[in-house]
Amino acid sequence: MDAVDSERLQRVEAIFRKAPFLENLGVKFLGCGPGWCESGLQVQNYHKQQNRLVHAGVLATLADHTAGAAAGTLIAPGEIVLTVEFKINLLRPGKGQSLRARAQVLKPGRRLSVVESEVFAKDGEQESLVAKATVTLAVLADFKEDAG
Amino acid sequence: MDAVDSERLQRVEAIFRKAPFLENLGVKFLGCGPGWCESGLQVQNYHKQQNRLVHAGVLATLADHTAGAAAGTLIAPGEIVLTVEFKINLLRPGKGQSLRARAQVLKPGRRLSVVESEVFAKDGEQESLVAKATVTLAVLADFKEDAG
Amino acid sequence: MDAVDSERLQRVEAIFRKAPFLENLGVKFLGCGPGWCESGLQVQNYHKQQNRLVHAGVLATLADHTAGAAAGTLIAPGEIVLTVEFKINLLRPGKGQSLRARAQVLKPGRRLSVVESEVFAKDGEQESLVAKATVTLAVLADFKEDAG
Amino acid sequence: MDAVDSERLQRVEAIFRKAPFLENLGVKFLGCGPGWCESGLQVQNYHKQQNRLVHAGVLATLADHTAGAAAGTLIAPGEIVLTVEFKINLLRPGKGQSLRARAQVLKPGRRLSVVESEVFAKDGEQESLVAKATVTLAVLADFKEDAG
Repeated sequence: MDAVDSERLQRVEAIFRKAPFLENLGVKFLGCGPGWCESGLQVQNYHKQQNRLVHAGVLATLADHTAGAAAGTLIAPGEIVLTVEFKINLLRPGKGQSLRARAQVLKPGRRLSVVESEVFAKDGEQESLVAKATVTLAVLADFKEDAG
Repeated sequence: MDAVDSERLQRVEAIFRKAPFLENLGVKFLGCGPGWCESGLQVQNYHKQQNRLVHAGVLATLADHTAGAAAGTLIAPGEIVLTVEFKINLLRPGKGQSLRARAQVLKPGRRLSVVESEVFAKDGEQESLVAKATVTLAVLADFKEDAG
Repeated sequence: MDAVDSERLQRVEAIFRKAPFLENLGVKFLGCGPGWCESGLQVQNYHKQQNRLVHAGVLATLADHTAGAAAGTLIAPGEIVLTVEFKINLLRPGKGQSLRARAQVLKPGRRLSVVESEVFAKDGEQESLVAKATVTLAVLADFKEDAG
Repeated sequence: MDAVDSERLQRVEAIFRKAPFLENLGVKFLGCGPGWCESGLQVQNYHKQQNRLVHAGVLATLADHTAGAAAGTLIAPGEIVLTVEFKINLLRPGKGQSLRARAQVLKPGRRLSVVESEVFAKDGEQESLVAKATVTLAVLADFKEDAG
């Protein structure tokens, strides 16, 4: 079934809302289900390289964070995920008015999850794949949970 | 000799100064020589994850951008470098007051350069390696150079 | 159209037939079309780790080589592809009687191609994804072509 | 101190001796110490690509396996390491009479170890770096140890 319970949905939404760096970039949570998550942002000048294209660091941030949220849809309460490593290929110039990332868990696990993220740029009516990442995340008990 | 000529130094400095996303993050150019570059930033709240640690996207941005600058110390006037792909391992929690990235060209090339970047976090007097990246960059003729 | 002309088909088949290391591993070409290729092997004891599982090096070889062949379906006569780098995630233990790799070009290019390879292990009737790789390849003129 | 106890040395040597795929490739254990390992092979025709160069899969196997052995120098009795993922950059053509891999643990851990491997090819008197890999390994209890 392509839905997550409301407790989990709130937890995933919070991964975006409570991260100051994501707020700085203007990233919005777009939706999630079991094993996937989507997010996006409106491209602003401060997202760019010297050459007017979106900086690879913005694409990497979207890809990594959305991957973490996708993995987060499959973990138990009291668990967290942390990125161990990721690899990203920059496939086309990042130009357009908005970006959208879709992350899909390739292999969930009790200790490690592997997630793939695709980042699309929308330029006018045209959306194209600009980056693809593979993200390995550790699943951990959140010892600091009570400390909030 | 561990120095670059002044034309090249200005070109590398400009890679940091003219990139709006780097200005947004507060990244400062710290120095460069043939095949290497260093940059850094003072950690602010807006660099962080929900868990108070520096976001992996910030570490990735520093690692990638500084790698591009290191590769840029070895190219000819009229050439540019573009990141093809990178992989980053997050080795320790990104905590501290400042970050420093040091990028070193592992293999220069006419078409492709491979660069390694290490990102260190300084927490009080202690500096520790928090991330390491390998970055593959394409060396290209900058067709738009006259258009500035 | 999901077919390649016969000249190209022969060229891709030769990528498997003429590589001594692939012959050593017993890799068979299974098929190709524009932008994809499949290969496989019957698992033998000499493919294994000390723990009786297929060695990651065998999975990596299949993934890389089949990716090269997939990229090879899209290049012009007189061009060759060379692996620049790849990343592979080992998702499940490599156990079973046979392996199959399917490679699909994610982004073709005049200078660089990015290909994804999935490696499946068949254990009895069950086939499962055991590894996934992303491979970056350079497209080059084959200067040595006349030398055969 | 740059030495490992004899129990550990034997365990690391066995990682090479007992792996049929490594025997197939003719890989020899060359030495190890706390956090590092070296191995090598004499290049034969069956290690090669169609173009007479050493196949990337051979380089990847050496890099990965030697990384596992390096991580293995730091684990406790009853633990094993398994490769989670690796990324390898192929820096120069793999030509020469012999290969040598040197793996060094970048970040040891109780659950995960990150290791870097450099592969060198020796052509006459000249040794050059032909590949560099970053390998992430899981540290696990070896439940099958008594079945050994």
